[in-house]
Amino acid sequence: MCTALTFDAENFYFGRNFDYHFSYGEEVVIAPRNFPLVLRTEKDIINHHAIIGMAYVAENQPLYYDAANEKGLCMAALNFVGNAHYNKRIKDKINITHFEFIPFILGRCSSVNEAKRLIENINITDESFNDKLPVSQLHWIIADKEGSITVEAVKEGIKVYDNPVGVLTNNPSFPTQIFQLNNYMRLSNKTPKNTFSDKVKLNAYSLGMGGLGLPGDLSSTSRFVRTTFAKLNSPKTKGEKQSVNQFFHILGFAEQILGCNDIGEDEFEITVYSSCCNADKGIYYYKTYDDFTIRKIEMNSHNLESSTLFRYPVNLVY
Amino acid sequence: MCTALTFDAENFYFGRNFDYHFSYGEEVVIAPRNFPLVLRTEKDIINHHAIIGMAYVAENQPLYYDAANEKGLCMAALNFVGNAHYNKRIKDKINITHFEFIPFILGRCSSVNEAKRLIENINITDESFNDKLPVSQLHWIIADKEGSITVEAVKEGIKVYDNPVGVLTNNPSFPTQIFQLNNYMRLSNKTPKNTFSDKVKLNAYSLGMGGLGLPGDLSSTSRFVRTTFAKLNSPKTKGEKQSVNQFFHILGFAEQILGCNDIGEDEFEITVYSSCCNADKGIYYYKTYDDFTIRKIEMNSHNLESSTLFRYPVNLVY
Amino acid sequence: MCTALTFDAENFYFGRNFDYHFSYGEEVVIAPRNFPLVLRTEKDIINHHAIIGMAYVAENQPLYYDAANEKGLCMAALNFVGNAHYNKRIKDKINITHFEFIPFILGRCSSVNEAKRLIENINITDESFNDKLPVSQLHWIIADKEGSITVEAVKEGIKVYDNPVGVLTNNPSFPTQIFQLNNYMRLSNKTPKNTFSDKVKLNAYSLGMGGLGLPGDLSSTSRFVRTTFAKLNSPKTKGEKQSVNQFFHILGFAEQILGCNDIGEDEFEITVYSSCCNADKGIYYYKTYDDFTIRKIEMNSHNLESSTLFRYPVNLVY
Amino acid sequence: MCTALTFDAENFYFGRNFDYHFSYGEEVVIAPRNFPLVLRTEKDIINHHAIIGMAYVAENQPLYYDAANEKGLCMAALNFVGNAHYNKRIKDKINITHFEFIPFILGRCSSVNEAKRLIENINITDESFNDKLPVSQLHWIIADKEGSITVEAVKEGIKVYDNPVGVLTNNPSFPTQIFQLNNYMRLSNKTPKNTFSDKVKLNAYSLGMGGLGLPGDLSSTSRFVRTTFAKLNSPKTKGEKQSVNQFFHILGFAEQILGCNDIGEDEFEITVYSSCCNADKGIYYYKTYDDFTIRKIEMNSHNLESSTLFRYPVNLVY
Repeated sequence: MCTALTFDAENFYFGRNFDYHFSYGEEVVIAPRNFPLVLRTEKDIINHHAIIGMAYVAENQPLYYDAANEKGLCMAALNFVGNAHYNKRIKDKINITHFEFIPFILGRCSSVNEAKRLIENINITDESFNDKLPVSQLHWIIADKEGSITVEAVKEGIKVYDNPVGVLTNNPSFPTQIFQLNNYMRLSNKTPKNTFSDKVKLNAYSLGMGGLGLPGDLSSTSRFVRTTFAKLNSPKTKGEKQSVNQFFHILGFAEQILGCNDIGEDEFEITVYSSCCNADKGIYYYKTYDDFTIRKIEMNSHNLESSTLFRYPVNLVY
Repeated sequence: MCTALTFDAENFYFGRNFDYHFSYGEEVVIAPRNFPLVLRTEKDIINHHAIIGMAYVAENQPLYYDAANEKGLCMAALNFVGNAHYNKRIKDKINITHFEFIPFILGRCSSVNEAKRLIENINITDESFNDKLPVSQLHWIIADKEGSITVEAVKEGIKVYDNPVGVLTNNPSFPTQIFQLNNYMRLSNKTPKNTFSDKVKLNAYSLGMGGLGLPGDLSSTSRFVRTTFAKLNSPKTKGEKQSVNQFFHILGFAEQILGCNDIGEDEFEITVYSSCCNADKGIYYYKTYDDFTIRKIEMNSHNLESSTLFRYPVNLVY
Repeated sequence: MCTALTFDAENFYFGRNFDYHFSYGEEVVIAPRNFPLVLRTEKDIINHHAIIGMAYVAENQPLYYDAANEKGLCMAALNFVGNAHYNKRIKDKINITHFEFIPFILGRCSSVNEAKRLIENINITDESFNDKLPVSQLHWIIADKEGSITVEAVKEGIKVYDNPVGVLTNNPSFPTQIFQLNNYMRLSNKTPKNTFSDKVKLNAYSLGMGGLGLPGDLSSTSRFVRTTFAKLNSPKTKGEKQSVNQFFHILGFAEQILGCNDIGEDEFEITVYSSCCNADKGIYYYKTYDDFTIRKIEMNSHNLESSTLFRYPVNLVY
Repeated sequence: MCTALTFDAENFYFGRNFDYHFSYGEEVVIAPRNFPLVLRTEKDIINHHAIIGMAYVAENQPLYYDAANEKGLCMAALNFVGNAHYNKRIKDKINITHFEFIPFILGRCSSVNEAKRLIENINITDESFNDKLPVSQLHWIIADKEGSITVEAVKEGIKVYDNPVGVLTNNPSFPTQIFQLNNYMRLSNKTPKNTFSDKVKLNAYSLGMGGLGLPGDLSSTSRFVRTTFAKLNSPKTKGEKQSVNQFFHILGFAEQILGCNDIGEDEFEITVYSSCCNADKGIYYYKTYDDFTIRKIEMNSHNLESSTLFRYPVNLVY
């Protein structure tokens, strides 16, 4: 499944682990301002904010997994299996499919607040892209340097939650997910003092014992807690290199390691790729499970007035 | 398996949960001073400190599970399966079987220090009481109001450990058992403060959250931690009634509940009985799984110069 | 805080731990059929099902904590601090205060299904009983031998949830509470097999290790999990004595022990009383923190056509 | 602190995380066969197996942290603070300082079995290298493709333990460390089945829930469990690239992330470097906290008959 993260340093960073048991053939894709975003129900968007992100390109349309636009607005889709609920088209609503949602928001909005207002009128429809691609059950994190929201389309309708920690994983629904952080409130990145009892001498025999109780497994709830702990305890980094590195280290805390998550029939979920986008500068970094080296693509070194996609296939060899 | 406990209030209290899947037919047994304690290798003890405790009586000898003597010295045997190691008789050692160990120590010693010295010369032999009774693999807690020790006969010989918490359960060996308390040092009986991060608002949504992380299962390690937590955080009680009640409440924290510990073939381990002895006054209290009412027998209301056992069968109906 | 429990054996049992740091002076109170139940907004109920339960009696009205009626319908109120939300009186609704809710339901309904239908029209109002008694923030469990529901009055209105486990504690709201049971699905009352890895030999060194991971602290979430584990793994008991005993043992698994839950200023939350009502026979059993002996009062040995309360003060000495 | 790991694939791999709050200026150092290894008490070793590893070079001597020799024998030193105990020189023993131990063993032994025999006669002395370098309290893992041992110099003498999992972290002593793996025996890399109770429907709402209970903090005990879980559940990898990558991913599971382990005075422990040595081929790979890119140095492309060190400073910029 997946883990998304925001990170404030001298710039604003946004990215995610994409966890799955295979790759569709992802590419870093820049959709310049005049590339036509084709929509199923609504009118196509001919002019829009330029977008950079990871996508699977089908029928020349970028199906973004995570992306940022030139205004610094960022968005990622994460699995929300069993909870996501999409509807048929509804009159008087803006009808958007789940695979159109990222380009629609990033194409039109320049801030989380704009996105929030736009979402008030959106209905997410239950259409698949084509016969080969299933309808993915997703929820979304939308973030800019001012804050983050989580968007969940459930039976009761579209719910928009403030996301005070800037982390998203998968199930359960966001209010239940963030509630459980309360259970970890006494954890600390510092060496604990003995509060068990002053009648027995206890000993911090190792550094790091303040975090005892932090869950180490790969379920969505545990990745949520662990990533939040690492993020919120991270010191403010300086410079692009240190910030990007630290971002990937925090994501690494929630990495899916080959063998640890057996999904049956000799298949394992792994962190197929990890990404980190400098949202202020439109620089998209990523690394893959089989290559630790960080690659980068800069949106602003491309002609953003173009009308054709710029595509950089990710070399996923494993 | 079992849990033993010491407790200091206006008097000194000692007792245990006896956890098993059936009862041999335990009795509260007073061995008065002139009751002959028969030993297999050593000379029988004709005169000794009077003893009160829970025992199975076989061939007119009390096989004590837990007991106290008139000097306030207390001792209990608890399962130590897979770790206990007894030897053949050794010349120049005091050869004592595992079932003689409690009456031998309580018959002769009036303090933990005396017991310690005596144990230096003891060899615990691997004899069974008779054909019907197996050799039990045991370790022991010996305590008086000054302190407690744990005695373990292992391959390397007899080990005597100071027991600073006055609690004993079963496996693993005592140094490993007590070491793990360090892992719970940041637990508390107070409502926790948020030390996870000052960047997120967390909420103690319930009383009792300071203990989050305390293990709740019935394994020996978890019962050790839980009982120690309850004991060390107990306020000093006043009066016999409150002290005895609190003792049983603490033991209740480690109780084996019918159904929670399935040992196979439709059998469950339960807390067959719980005991609490006022070691200063020689009053033995107990209750059983099927009867919450606390019963008591007073040693000092008996003729302690007698040479015959005083026996009070426990009515274990379950 | 508190823990409520239902239990099916040859009869249907219902009860609870009442956890608090002091006692208001509870009494076992029988409200016979013709005792007038006084209501603030609605018409007083002159004739109703007879009720037995634990209550604080104020101005001759029984403020029930937990009770059962002669039809076998049971109900208990538990703290729900920070989440409960009561309203002003609403026209066209049945306006019931939180302290009237138990007698109103038990007085009029003979089954959970009847209660459900009645609740559809109820508005819980924010009135206090008098100047000395605060408005308690509560939620409720209502049960009969067919099943249980949880009733929560929150900002969004009154929510009625099926309660498939028949256990209720306190915060968080019931859907979040029961969701977390999923996190314990691999626990068991049986000795675990090594599934960590077949490349290392691991050892169940103690009985009870299948429960490792069961939380042992006194927070509402942990009490919920622990009580549910004990209840659902309990074998079916036989006879009144064994069933009532087992009920109290299961409640004991969630008991608040003096000292373990420090609420500040030298005050501790304890399990003030535990109750168990045979709902089929109208027999109410209880024990208190300072007295393990189980007491009982039988509704049916009273004149249920009476119009005055039968009151049995609980001797709470602690 | 640190985490060491062995890994069997088509070749044998050995490496470690070096966790500390600063760097002494580590270098990858090849000590060719004729480089004189200077010893304090014993005769200098003039001819020996060639060694490659990470070292701090002082007075032209490589103080190895972890290394492998040309025979495929590997060894790493890890902190063992509070438990390590070194002695004065002892006549009739081979007196070796803690900083000589790695080159002495790797210089002379070609297998774990040879090392075991040699260690029988070794006394580890309490000398510091010089005034500026403290005596480090260490324990060691020694491994070849046949197996691993842990060596601990404690008060009772030098203890050599078989290490069946090929993982080492820090405190507590190895028997206590490995014992606790038993507590995780029911964890699995597979989706759990509901064994909590068949009376309630529970749901694996996320992949990875079989690992629930795996500790996620950075203490030595938790890193030991987590690393062992990831290693033992890793499928057999193929080819040098996949094997080295997988090795670093497993080590990454125990990585110390900047901010998560606050050691006071604004200092944090981090994983300064991670290493992976192909012990069959003498290839040493490493990456650092501030550079994810994997670097490599091949021993066999150097003149191993040389008598001078080959040194490759690690560019630690953070």
